[in-house]
Amino acid sequence: MSGRNPTNPDPVSEPVPEPGPESVSGSGEFDLIGRYFAPLAGPGAFGLGDDAAVLTPAPGQQLVFTADAIIAGVHFLADDPAADVAAKLLAVNLSDLAAMGAAGAGYLITTAWPRDLNESWIADFAQGLAAAQAEHGIALLGGDTVATDGPMSLSLTAIGQLPTGTAMRRNGARVGDAIYVSGRIGDAGVGLRILRDGLVGGAAAERETAIARYRRPGPRLALGQALRGLATACIDVSDGLIADLGHLAAQSGAAMVVDLAVVPLSPLADLIGGAAAAVVAGDDYELLFTAPFGDERRLLAAAQGTGTAVSRIGRVAAGEGVEVIDAAGEKVELARPGYRHF
Amino acid sequence: MSGRNPTNPDPVSEPVPEPGPESVSGSGEFDLIGRYFAPLAGPGAFGLGDDAAVLTPAPGQQLVFTADAIIAGVHFLADDPAADVAAKLLAVNLSDLAAMGAAGAGYLITTAWPRDLNESWIADFAQGLAAAQAEHGIALLGGDTVATDGPMSLSLTAIGQLPTGTAMRRNGARVGDAIYVSGRIGDAGVGLRILRDGLVGGAAAERETAIARYRRPGPRLALGQALRGLATACIDVSDGLIADLGHLAAQSGAAMVVDLAVVPLSPLADLIGGAAAAVVAGDDYELLFTAPFGDERRLLAAAQGTGTAVSRIGRVAAGEGVEVIDAAGEKVELARPGYRHF
Repeated sequence: MSGRNPTNPDPVSEPVPEPGPESVSGSGEFDLIGRYFAPLAGPGAFGLGDDAAVLTPAPGQQLVFTADAIIAGVHFLADDPAADVAAKLLAVNLSDLAAMGAAGAGYLITTAWPRDLNESWIADFAQGLAAAQAEHGIALLGGDTVATDGPMSLSLTAIGQLPTGTAMRRNGARVGDAIYVSGRIGDAGVGLRILRDGLVGGAAAERETAIARYRRPGPRLALGQALRGLATACIDVSDGLIADLGHLAAQSGAAMVVDLAVVPLSPLADLIGGAAAAVVAGDDYELLFTAPFGDERRLLAAAQGTGTAVSRIGRVAAGEGVEVIDAAGEKVELARPGYRHF
Repeated sequence: MSGRNPTNPDPVSEPVPEPGPESVSGSGEFDLIGRYFAPLAGPGAFGLGDDAAVLTPAPGQQLVFTADAIIAGVHFLADDPAADVAAKLLAVNLSDLAAMGAAGAGYLITTAWPRDLNESWIADFAQGLAAAQAEHGIALLGGDTVATDGPMSLSLTAIGQLPTGTAMRRNGARVGDAIYVSGRIGDAGVGLRILRDGLVGGAAAERETAIARYRRPGPRLALGQALRGLATACIDVSDGLIADLGHLAAQSGAAMVVDLAVVPLSPLADLIGGAAAAVVAGDDYELLFTAPFGDERRLLAAAQGTGTAVSRIGRVAAGEGVEVIDAAGEKVELARPGYRHF
């Protein structure tokens, strides 16, 4: 873990304002790292006291890398609990590893904290990170901590490993394959609408589940590993089921035909507009994959072994793009295929 | 490279303002990635079209990881050329790999662009990144692109490799070792003061060098690799020579005694207060390391083979912390040992 000399403000020419007793401005960067992040360091990370971490892959294993950034007010809500923000940041990255079929190996994190952030927020964040990394069996390898005048900005690079040559890609779907998705779609979208827009309705337990799925998605690491050698293409559902199917279609050079009536839905999906809304809501972090029809029994058995339900929702056809059909086989037009950041 | 569904603003309930014709708001995230970053993708990165990248270390090699974040207005100046910002972001991370003795293997980048950023800035940034990665013989493995309402925030994870068991650490300095530094100290500090504070004086060519060293530091990758097996401890100078010596002292459990009169200085160091100011200015990205006196000839020959000058500036003593002495051997008190981010 390292600090670097910032350009500005320079304490020589522009004295830093006197911090409040509990704001992070009262602590040095190295104090914060030592207090909250060093305890999370794994083997090879040297307690975050060195310039870099060292990792040796097991024989016959490849390493897999992914990075995602999240910004307060954009990817999480400013009043989301700190521990949940930490868990989600790790989960969205591990979900990408899961989609490749990899097991987690380690991660690096960079945090830009607002200067007036209460140090207890960082303590809660680190505690959430500790719980999440323990749950997923990985450890911190390094990172950086800086201050910002803007919204909190967090970035994480996750490192996974898998047997050489077994990575699942997005480009392997073949015409005639079936399309599957794990778990159910729309919980996170409902949870977001409850938290952000005060959406009402639904049973209390289901509302809590929806909120939890928004704040603390569970990456499907075990399922992803079980699908190696079975799935022909795989992606995780982050932008939304339809948008992510579009990525599979584009990379595989085929069309994805999805039967809206059989997509497994959140029990509260009707609160946000039903299936048509749930499949574009995103943030589900389920695995979306293709496999030959003939392998379905093996595939379902493999999934069952990981405790994760899997549903067949469509088929791969010649052509391009995503086609959504209803129970009668009629084409459905969706308002919004996926979110654009810019 | 991946996108995720952001929490807010949601185009359904909160329409995104109409973008100007050249702002990034007019382009989709995937368009931006495809246009500017996909051409930088290396082997195993699948053209950034997948969930994660795959990398297989060469036999007998370990991988090394480091991550640094930089924020506009804090770590670089808002009007620094985009290509220089890209080069610096890569360089500060590669400098950490250099300090371990590693060669570069690849990198991941996450970018939070302000919504009103001109797309030509991103084009220039990508071009600068392309030039820098070519110079250092590495390629892009993945990352993420998001929008922010705050200042630009950039994070990079660099991956290096080195023969298993040869990483240089910060903790190996032994009492009696000599202390060395590469290149010269203070150029970047002078460059920053010229750019930010309108500092005057000095020859035009030297001013240009100082600015270039601030904006485009050169990571000492070749030197770092040459020092493996020779240096007992190594760190790169980012926080400032004295602060970084303090890290070596703390990790090695010894005192670092540095002779201020022999520290190789920027020819313009007097403009900012001479040696005492240069050694706390930071951003030099030179290597600072220790080695037994008896190995000095071998060490200087190894350094010379990489074309980088190396100077002996002190010795490791029993005790703790950093002691600065002048030519007469008298202790010098410095105003400010290093920058604190918070």
